[in-house]
Amino acid sequence: WGRATWQPPGPLLPPCRPFSNNKILVELDESSGVATMKFKSPPVNSLSLDFLTEFCISLEKLENNRACRGVIFTSAVPRIFSSGLDITEMYGKSKEHYAEFWRAVQEMWLRLYGSNMVTVAAVNGSSPAGGCLIALSCDYRIMVENPKFSIGLNEAQLGIVAPFWFKDTFVNVVGHRVAECSLQLGSLHPAPEALRFGLVDELVAEEKLQEKAAAIMAQWLALPDHARQLTKSMMRKAVLDRLVSHREEDIENFISFISKESIQKSLCMYMEMLKKKK
Amino acid sequence: WGRATWQPPGPLLPPCRPFSNNKILVELDESSGVATMKFKSPPVNSLSLDFLTEFCISLEKLENNRACRGVIFTSAVPRIFSSGLDITEMYGKSKEHYAEFWRAVQEMWLRLYGSNMVTVAAVNGSSPAGGCLIALSCDYRIMVENPKFSIGLNEAQLGIVAPFWFKDTFVNVVGHRVAECSLQLGSLHPAPEALRFGLVDELVAEEKLQEKAAAIMAQWLALPDHARQLTKSMMRKAVLDRLVSHREEDIENFISFISKESIQKSLCMYMEMLKKKK
Amino acid sequence: WGRATWQPPGPLLPPCRPFSNNKILVELDESSGVATMKFKSPPVNSLSLDFLTEFCISLEKLENNRACRGVIFTSAVPRIFSSGLDITEMYGKSKEHYAEFWRAVQEMWLRLYGSNMVTVAAVNGSSPAGGCLIALSCDYRIMVENPKFSIGLNEAQLGIVAPFWFKDTFVNVVGHRVAECSLQLGSLHPAPEALRFGLVDELVAEEKLQEKAAAIMAQWLALPDHARQLTKSMMRKAVLDRLVSHREEDIENFISFISKESIQKSLCMYMEMLKKKK
Repeated sequence: WGRATWQPPGPLLPPCRPFSNNKILVELDESSGVATMKFKSPPVNSLSLDFLTEFCISLEKLENNRACRGVIFTSAVPRIFSSGLDITEMYGKSKEHYAEFWRAVQEMWLRLYGSNMVTVAAVNGSSPAGGCLIALSCDYRIMVENPKFSIGLNEAQLGIVAPFWFKDTFVNVVGHRVAECSLQLGSLHPAPEALRFGLVDELVAEEKLQEKAAAIMAQWLALPDHARQLTKSMMRKAVLDRLVSHREEDIENFISFISKESIQKSLCMYMEMLKKKK
Repeated sequence: WGRATWQPPGPLLPPCRPFSNNKILVELDESSGVATMKFKSPPVNSLSLDFLTEFCISLEKLENNRACRGVIFTSAVPRIFSSGLDITEMYGKSKEHYAEFWRAVQEMWLRLYGSNMVTVAAVNGSSPAGGCLIALSCDYRIMVENPKFSIGLNEAQLGIVAPFWFKDTFVNVVGHRVAECSLQLGSLHPAPEALRFGLVDELVAEEKLQEKAAAIMAQWLALPDHARQLTKSMMRKAVLDRLVSHREEDIENFISFISKESIQKSLCMYMEMLKKKK
Repeated sequence: WGRATWQPPGPLLPPCRPFSNNKILVELDESSGVATMKFKSPPVNSLSLDFLTEFCISLEKLENNRACRGVIFTSAVPRIFSSGLDITEMYGKSKEHYAEFWRAVQEMWLRLYGSNMVTVAAVNGSSPAGGCLIALSCDYRIMVENPKFSIGLNEAQLGIVAPFWFKDTFVNVVGHRVAECSLQLGSLHPAPEALRFGLVDELVAEEKLQEKAAAIMAQWLALPDHARQLTKSMMRKAVLDRLVSHREEDIENFISFISKESIQKSLCMYMEMLKKKK
């Protein structure tokens, strides 16, 4: 009752290295207060270090812009929302690189799951692993009703394990039982199944997606911001705080896990398989 | 396995100030062991300090009466179960008054959610905010199948925030995802939707409500009291203890939040709107 | 991300006393890596100290056998999966006996719920109380679609209370609300209702049960073991640790509860009722 909203731990430092600034198209409609962040990093909007840095900076700018009250996330690439973490960032790199990459993944989630703005995912394509995490971290998820599009935390299929805060976010959306089963099997749920399991909130025809997202956003923006923000913070604080207080440990875990020879071999085989698919 | 049942923290002190004793009609059928607490505080059974005091004293009397094993809560006012906390108790009063009022709200919930008796809500009208909390705190909820009657924790609509223990109670009933969405939107769910979301357990025609409530009560009373009480305590203890150990802090939070000029203005506007509606 | 899998607390000591070794038929198909543990302790596969000891030893052997990756649990006794804890172990015995028995119940659950193997319950008969716990502790539950077969934690019906870790396991499967209601009423859910509440994952005709269990097992074994095991451990660790850190206290609670005259009387009456039923 009236506590402060959740605050991400300190301001985002300006990135030390140069980064591309064209992987995400950001448009703000000042009349409605609604921004759109459109992922346009072909072929599959994978979450590279560059993409994540741009994501965080764009989101922080909107967060600090009083004219912006809500953000819709969608893809400019046909048939894919986001393919998740960029495997090339996790293969054959230095420990320093792994640390920097993982910190960027954490930062993306902390800012998105803890955002004071209304966040709506307009999922217009498949959305595995980290792509699914982006959708799960929003306030509302609309997906195109194409059964060829699927969504899920499929890390186990690659021989890796979703970190605890992916899991916590997933459990908060679908409950413990569905999460346990889906995470162990690394399931990618076709859109109709994703709806049945509560992984997304509704399905619409592709041509109605943006219109629907705007309507949902308007419904959420009809509420007074302050009460809604405090409520969101109350619901998500425990899970956000858990990562904040184990952040360095989580980075260490990631580095030691991803550096294992067996895991590097798994990722290599997976990348070979992806290449052959093309 | 065999722990003691949950105990409210100390006996309820006799109220220092006089209070009306006619806002709730209490009838005990000694043959069945079932009492009915019927709210009759027109126009909308709002939870004033008087109402809450009478509620706690009536419930305590039944709790200590060995002839009473279960309580059915219902309304004697047409079309409304309870409109929730009385806004006039939260507007333009002293800090001492806010503290006394909030302590009474806490006490009501601690006694009801932690009751050793079987508690059934027979929801025969709309039930926003604190009215919804009463229903959520019972063991079972039956609602009249009239889509004009709605139920929900709509605090966010008023620009205020449900306290953490309202939220905990809600999450225990509908799960994290439904609670997160419903609380942020301040949703009032029409009866059929309330059933779909698990906010109530079943719907019946208005003329069958009391009969159904009695049948459900009989089903619950068929179990040995002691085992049922220990089980209930096991399920609810964590959430009850959380308020008990943060009670004074919660009162301070309420006072500082409700004393804010912006919140007082919101409540004033809301009351004006209610007056115009009439 | 890459933590170690959950480990049961120390190796299982060889039982000090002799025990029968024919209550469970264990078959391992080395080609598929799938074992079957078939309960054959007529009349009702009750969980006696002998049965539990044999269960733990058999499970530990399979766990340590690298040729075994999954176990299917089913019954060789018609119409009953397992009737749960053997009441004769809890009636008119010494405190030492109660302690030994309860430790065996804990051990069974710690090993099964924390197993690194894929565990599938093929529930081909009724499964009350401890029998239900075995099913709940598996990764997946298939039940014969016979509405005469029921499943649930019905302890409250006997005047006793399911321990907190039965409850935790149940909540992880069906959620807080269903668990609260079902545990207080001591409900035994007929198969179709069990499916509706998520207590089991699917129903099949009795003649298709083993085939279905094998198909589900194959699906789970298609995943790399290590990632699946780490994921399972992440999902279940909190609940397993809770018993591990309160194990002695839980035994003390059981002994003092079960030794109560009123509880002994309840159990006696229940056994008389069972005898008359025959």
